[in-house]
Amino acid sequence: MKIESVSVDHFRIPLPVALSDSTHGTMTHSGLITVRIRDGDGMEGVGYTYTVNDIGSRAIRTLIEDDLAPAVLNEDPRDIDRLWEKMWWHAHFCGRGGLVSFAMAAIDIALWDLAGKRAEAPLWRLLGGHRNAVQAYAGGIDLAFSLDALLAQADEFLERGFTAIKMKVGRAILGEDVARAEAMRDKLGDHFPLMADANMRWGVHEAVAAARALTPVGLVWLEEPTIPDDWAGNRRIAEQGGVPIAAGENLHSVYEFEQLIMHTAVSYPEPDAATLGGITPWIKVAHLAQARNLPVTSHGIHDIHVHLLCAVSNGSYLEFHGFGLERFLEVPLVLDNGLARAPDRPGHGVAFIWDRLAEHRVA
Amino acid sequence: MKIESVSVDHFRIPLPVALSDSTHGTMTHSGLITVRIRDGDGMEGVGYTYTVNDIGSRAIRTLIEDDLAPAVLNEDPRDIDRLWEKMWWHAHFCGRGGLVSFAMAAIDIALWDLAGKRAEAPLWRLLGGHRNAVQAYAGGIDLAFSLDALLAQADEFLERGFTAIKMKVGRAILGEDVARAEAMRDKLGDHFPLMADANMRWGVHEAVAAARALTPVGLVWLEEPTIPDDWAGNRRIAEQGGVPIAAGENLHSVYEFEQLIMHTAVSYPEPDAATLGGITPWIKVAHLAQARNLPVTSHGIHDIHVHLLCAVSNGSYLEFHGFGLERFLEVPLVLDNGLARAPDRPGHGVAFIWDRLAEHRVA
Repeated sequence: MKIESVSVDHFRIPLPVALSDSTHGTMTHSGLITVRIRDGDGMEGVGYTYTVNDIGSRAIRTLIEDDLAPAVLNEDPRDIDRLWEKMWWHAHFCGRGGLVSFAMAAIDIALWDLAGKRAEAPLWRLLGGHRNAVQAYAGGIDLAFSLDALLAQADEFLERGFTAIKMKVGRAILGEDVARAEAMRDKLGDHFPLMADANMRWGVHEAVAAARALTPVGLVWLEEPTIPDDWAGNRRIAEQGGVPIAAGENLHSVYEFEQLIMHTAVSYPEPDAATLGGITPWIKVAHLAQARNLPVTSHGIHDIHVHLLCAVSNGSYLEFHGFGLERFLEVPLVLDNGLARAPDRPGHGVAFIWDRLAEHRVA
Repeated sequence: MKIESVSVDHFRIPLPVALSDSTHGTMTHSGLITVRIRDGDGMEGVGYTYTVNDIGSRAIRTLIEDDLAPAVLNEDPRDIDRLWEKMWWHAHFCGRGGLVSFAMAAIDIALWDLAGKRAEAPLWRLLGGHRNAVQAYAGGIDLAFSLDALLAQADEFLERGFTAIKMKVGRAILGEDVARAEAMRDKLGDHFPLMADANMRWGVHEAVAAARALTPVGLVWLEEPTIPDDWAGNRRIAEQGGVPIAAGENLHSVYEFEQLIMHTAVSYPEPDAATLGGITPWIKVAHLAQARNLPVTSHGIHDIHVHLLCAVSNGSYLEFHGFGLERFLEVPLVLDNGLARAPDRPGHGVAFIWDRLAEHRVA
C-alpha cells in the first residue's frame, strides 16, 4: 500500500462579513490550503489547514509541494504516526512547530481521512469513540461590533440553536468590556454558558485586573488574556484573576502544550488540529490534558474537531468557527439542541464542493 | 525616507563536501535566500538566511515575497525595531517563531546593513562597539568521518589558523564518541579549546551518561545533547552531566531563549541571527544572557555574527560554519592568530558575488 499522489490546492476565501478581534485587526479573507492524498487503490483522503487574511498560505502550500509531499510519497499511508515523525524531522531545522505545523496538519488530516475511509468508519469511532455528539458554542468575532450588534448577533446564535456563546473582549477601555459582557449575561440569563476571548491583548497585570472585573459575569472561561510565550505570566493570571483560562490556538507543537498544561494553570487547553500539525498531535494533547485532570476544547475547523472531541473522554465545548466554510461543504455540520453530532460518514466526512471553491483558487 | 523595493533571490548551493551529523543525515546542499532592500536614496541593504539541504527555502522566499515584503514596503527603513514588531504581528497566526523567523531574519539583516551604510559605520560599531575581533572556532560536521579523517580535518583547521575546534558526537556507540574525543584531545594538547556537538541525538539519561563519559576530555562545551523542547531535561543534563552545555540553534524566538537561559542551566546560549529573526532579536538574546551572567556564542553565518559578538561585552566564541559560502563572497572572513576580525566596511560588509551565485539560482 503506497501513497501514489499528493495534490495541493490553495483558495483565498472572502469572509461573509469582515471580522475583528484585538490582535488580528480587520479580517476579510481566510486562506484555505487543501491536500488530497491518493493511495494505490484509488482511495482519496482530504486534509486542510487555513490562515487568517491568507497570510502565509502560499508559503504553507509551497512547503507541502516542495518538502513534505516528497517526504511521504510512496510511503505506506497507514503508517500515520511514523510519517508524522518523518515530516517533523525532515523539516526540523526550519520547523519545530510554527508554519511547518500548518503544512503537516493538512497532510496528517488527509491520512486520517484515508484511514477512516479504508476502515469504513467515521473518525470519531476510529479514534476511540467515546460518544457521538458534543456541546457546541458560537465563536463570535465581534470586538468592533456596537453593543446593539453584539446583542443582535447573540439573537442570531440563539435562533440557530446555540446553547453557548463566546464574545471578544480587549477593547481600549476595560469598562466597555465589562459592560458588554454584563449586557450579554443579562440577555442570556444566569446559567447560559458564556466565554470571552481577549486574543492576547493584555499585559499580565492588566489581564489580572480584567479577569477580576469580569468575575461577576460568571464566564466559563477567559481566553488568551496575554501572549502564549509568557508561561509564568499566564500562570499568574490564572491563579490571581479568578476566572478559568482557555489558551492554545497559537501553540504549534505538543511540547508547547506540555508547557501550557504543566506550567500555566490553564483550565481549557484549546488545540487546533489545523495549526498544531494535525490529528496525530491533537490526540496527544487531549491525553496530556486528561492526565492533568483537564478537559480539552478546540479552535477552528469544527468539522474535524467534532470527531476529535467525541473520540476522547475529556472532550469539552466545540467551537463553531466564524470563517464561513459552510457554503463550500456538501454537508455542513448542524446543531441538534445545542449539540454538534459527529457524522457517521467514513473518515471525517468533509466533502468540499470543489466547483464552488474553484473561483477562489490562487494560482 | 522610504523602502522603495524589496527583492528576493533563492539559491541552492552545493556543499564543497557532503556533511553529516546525528540529526540531519547527509547534507549535500544548503539553501540561501537573499533579500535586497533599496531606499529612496538608492542605497541598498543586503540580508540573507539559509536552510539545511534547501528544505523550506522556497516557502521562506514565498513568505517574504507574499507577506513580509508588502508589510515593510514604503515604510521608513530606519524604524528597524518597529518594522520587526510589525512583521512579527503581521505573520503571528502562522508565526511566533519557526519558519517565519527565517524570513524575518533576511529582512532584518538587510535593514541593519542599510543602517550601517547610511551611517558609514560597520555593524559592530553601530551596535555598540565593544571590540573588533573575537576568537573563532572551526565547526566540523564530521560525525561520519573515520577517525583518521577526523584527525586530518583537525590538521587542516590548525593550518588555517584555528585555535579552537568543535567536533560532532552522537555515534551509535558512546565509546566511539569518547575514543574520538580523546584522540582529538591527545592531538590538540591539554589546553586547546575543544567542543562537541550532539545535535539532539540523546535522551536525557543517555545525555547525562555521555556528558559524564566525556568529562575527562575537558570540553569547553557539549552542544545540544537532547531536543530543545525538553527544558527540564536540558536542565538535568547541565546539572548532572558535569559539562557546560551550549544550545540554541533550533530556537526561533527571544521568548524561547528566555526559557533556555532562565530555566535550563545552559552555559553558552547560541542564537543564530539567520534563524532567530535577525540582528534585532539576536542582540536582545545577548543582553538576556549577560543579565544572567552568561556569555553568548553563535551558530552559522559567521560573516554577520563576527559583528554581533564584537558589539556586545559578553561575546564568546564565533563559529566558523562549514557551509562554504566563502567562494561566493568578495571578501571572505579571515583568521588572524585565531581571531576573526570584524570588517570596517559599512554595514555588515558582506558582498556577494552575484554572478557566481547565478548558476545556483532557483527559479
